[in-house]
Amino acid sequence: MSQLILSVSWRRNLKPIEQKFARLETEHAPGQEVCAIGVVDPTVMQGKPIPGVPVDFSHGDVNETAFAPTPGSFEIFAEGVRSGGEQAYTEYRGKAAIREVVADKLAAFTGRPVDAARELIITPGTQGALFLAVASTVTSGDKVAIVRPDYFANRKLVEYMEAEIAPVDMNYLETEGKAGIDLERLEDAFRGGAKTLLFSNPNNPVGVVYSANEINRIAELAQHYGATVIVDQLYSRLIYTGNTFTHLRCTDIDPDNLVTIMGPSKTESLSGYRLGVAFGSARIIERMERLQAIVSLRAPGYCQAVLRTWFDEPPGWMTDRIQQHQLIRDELIEILQACAGTSVRATEAGSYIFPRFPALRIERQEFIDLLRLQAAVIATPGTEFSPYCADSIRFNFSQNRGAAAEAMHRVVQLANRYRA
Amino acid sequence: MSQLILSVSWRRNLKPIEQKFARLETEHAPGQEVCAIGVVDPTVMQGKPIPGVPVDFSHGDVNETAFAPTPGSFEIFAEGVRSGGEQAYTEYRGKAAIREVVADKLAAFTGRPVDAARELIITPGTQGALFLAVASTVTSGDKVAIVRPDYFANRKLVEYMEAEIAPVDMNYLETEGKAGIDLERLEDAFRGGAKTLLFSNPNNPVGVVYSANEINRIAELAQHYGATVIVDQLYSRLIYTGNTFTHLRCTDIDPDNLVTIMGPSKTESLSGYRLGVAFGSARIIERMERLQAIVSLRAPGYCQAVLRTWFDEPPGWMTDRIQQHQLIRDELIEILQACAGTSVRATEAGSYIFPRFPALRIERQEFIDLLRLQAAVIATPGTEFSPYCADSIRFNFSQNRGAAAEAMHRVVQLANRYRA
Repeated sequence: MSQLILSVSWRRNLKPIEQKFARLETEHAPGQEVCAIGVVDPTVMQGKPIPGVPVDFSHGDVNETAFAPTPGSFEIFAEGVRSGGEQAYTEYRGKAAIREVVADKLAAFTGRPVDAARELIITPGTQGALFLAVASTVTSGDKVAIVRPDYFANRKLVEYMEAEIAPVDMNYLETEGKAGIDLERLEDAFRGGAKTLLFSNPNNPVGVVYSANEINRIAELAQHYGATVIVDQLYSRLIYTGNTFTHLRCTDIDPDNLVTIMGPSKTESLSGYRLGVAFGSARIIERMERLQAIVSLRAPGYCQAVLRTWFDEPPGWMTDRIQQHQLIRDELIEILQACAGTSVRATEAGSYIFPRFPALRIERQEFIDLLRLQAAVIATPGTEFSPYCADSIRFNFSQNRGAAAEAMHRVVQLANRYRA
Repeated sequence: MSQLILSVSWRRNLKPIEQKFARLETEHAPGQEVCAIGVVDPTVMQGKPIPGVPVDFSHGDVNETAFAPTPGSFEIFAEGVRSGGEQAYTEYRGKAAIREVVADKLAAFTGRPVDAARELIITPGTQGALFLAVASTVTSGDKVAIVRPDYFANRKLVEYMEAEIAPVDMNYLETEGKAGIDLERLEDAFRGGAKTLLFSNPNNPVGVVYSANEINRIAELAQHYGATVIVDQLYSRLIYTGNTFTHLRCTDIDPDNLVTIMGPSKTESLSGYRLGVAFGSARIIERMERLQAIVSLRAPGYCQAVLRTWFDEPPGWMTDRIQQHQLIRDELIEILQACAGTSVRATEAGSYIFPRFPALRIERQEFIDLLRLQAAVIATPGTEFSPYCADSIRFNFSQNRGAAAEAMHRVVQLANRYRA
């Protein structure tokens, strides 16, 4: 308690800009584990490290031994470089010829037309698209509905805009056939003045897909309350057997109040090229371009060429990729279910699994540190996604299958070692 | 007058976020000319188009026939792709091994050490660095000193942060041996509460270099008033014979209050890879990384590898590149000086020339449009850089020499055709 008071009063002495950045700390963010110093109280550590191939579950493995980038992507990049200035210097929203190709593909994929000239922007990754979409929609003091748990940057983006979060919980462990979003709470948020909803579908970190009913109800509520929706569909191409994906843009929602975000960084393993897209409301896309002009100018010019491979992978390649991920999912679920007291929902889409572990006799952050030190496993703590997910850990299983399974066995061994 | 009132009252009816984005319009920004519809009143247009090779002076030409990217840059990129995940997924501030190489080069170049771990961040282009530096330093309501004329995005960045601009004029046409910044006005700005100065040296659009005296006095004033300085030194490797460049970081300024920005997009023609760096104050770099985590995650991973070529060009390559630019400068200056009533200062560094043209009998924007329609020349209106530079036009002369000279002859011909 006294520590809490101290921490609050310490924050009160900060200048406004210092307070703003204090809320953006990235120490436990995925990809930053390399910076973690990992000092664990030696009295806490028990037993010896468990040998095995290190696995970094904080992101997918794009090496040849796991899930390599789309075939031909490098060659298309090389063509872009050879074409010179016309590919290096594009319009801020991306090269027109490439936007035309991508708009057609996205229209076919989502089932609704996309105007390449007005309704699409190419961004530096989906993170770039999320930032631009939020910054083009939300201003200081606004209320924004955010799902818990959801992608860690969503909350930070709202905080960076000095807006207020209206949290909407998702009860994913006790529901079936739907994501479990609390739709009454969402209506409360809109009724309470939230003018924007930001969420990921398929959900990151849980890997659940929103049901058609949920998506239709979200559309209905947004429509009724005149809210703007930013939906991050980054994983919408990686849907496992038995699940159906509903595109929000195919509902009755006013298309002028909707931005959909996707990109080829995950399923297609093209993250090294930093590419994303946002499509939908021409009004918001126009603002996003104005902002991109001063934030990063444009998505890397030569890299934009790689979008020509998107939705144009070799026949069977995507089906095979989905099947391979599904096999890894099945194996990891089996390993986790054998760990007494662990709750886990089988991933329906994407490459995350978000098990809730049994009570431990050590702090949750210590367990994360010990996974790294004693099991050669990097994973992302649940608190990055919701304050109520301290018992959960996110694993990106887009990895070499054998290495991932062995690593998950080590995780279970350590959970048993430190069980309360 | 009534139009002004209308326009103000129209803006008053906008929502706050609409007002914010109304200030960010990009219609005349460099690189966006492709979007310009270019409807010119037919009664204004006189004579026939002048035939010639089209030249886009809004940015440099990176094709083989002009100034191609650093030799070996593509091969280094290809190596980065081959190295896989370790190059695709780097720390948000950039891959540590690359930061170490770059920090050493920047220390040698600027004459002051750079700590690769704490004092350097790799960003998506220098535009990314500028945005992150400003957003990490300035909050709503702050005052920021901005030089006029200076890089067009500086003003927009301050406006986007909802901060106030304290303008400081630069009298570049009537001074010699210095940039001509009004140092008394700068002190007024600091005295009036400006806590940040943002400027480019060498100056964009004028191509002048600040004298050692000017830089030392800027340092002294910043020090005295406790101001933070963000200096964009993007063109500091392209210095012409007879000019000396002074690095602000080599003065007595408190290094904790200084961020220097550079990148390989211009002199090295690597713009297609979207790379920039900011170095200096560890405190500000730390904030910039936190912000990058939600803005674009990181500079494109594979592209970061290309920074290994920076300051490591083949022997003689950079000297030759500077000489080639100097020859083009000399030729364009000669062409412009033959145009009665045109004032131009010879570029001292970088690849911009910013002539002030004589009075015309048509609107300045009409002249810009006619350059495109009748002379196949794209250039950037002076008003992008200062409200008082309507008579000036910025030309980036990093072009094929013959094409640039012929194009400038066409510009002069049109200036004479539409002379008042």
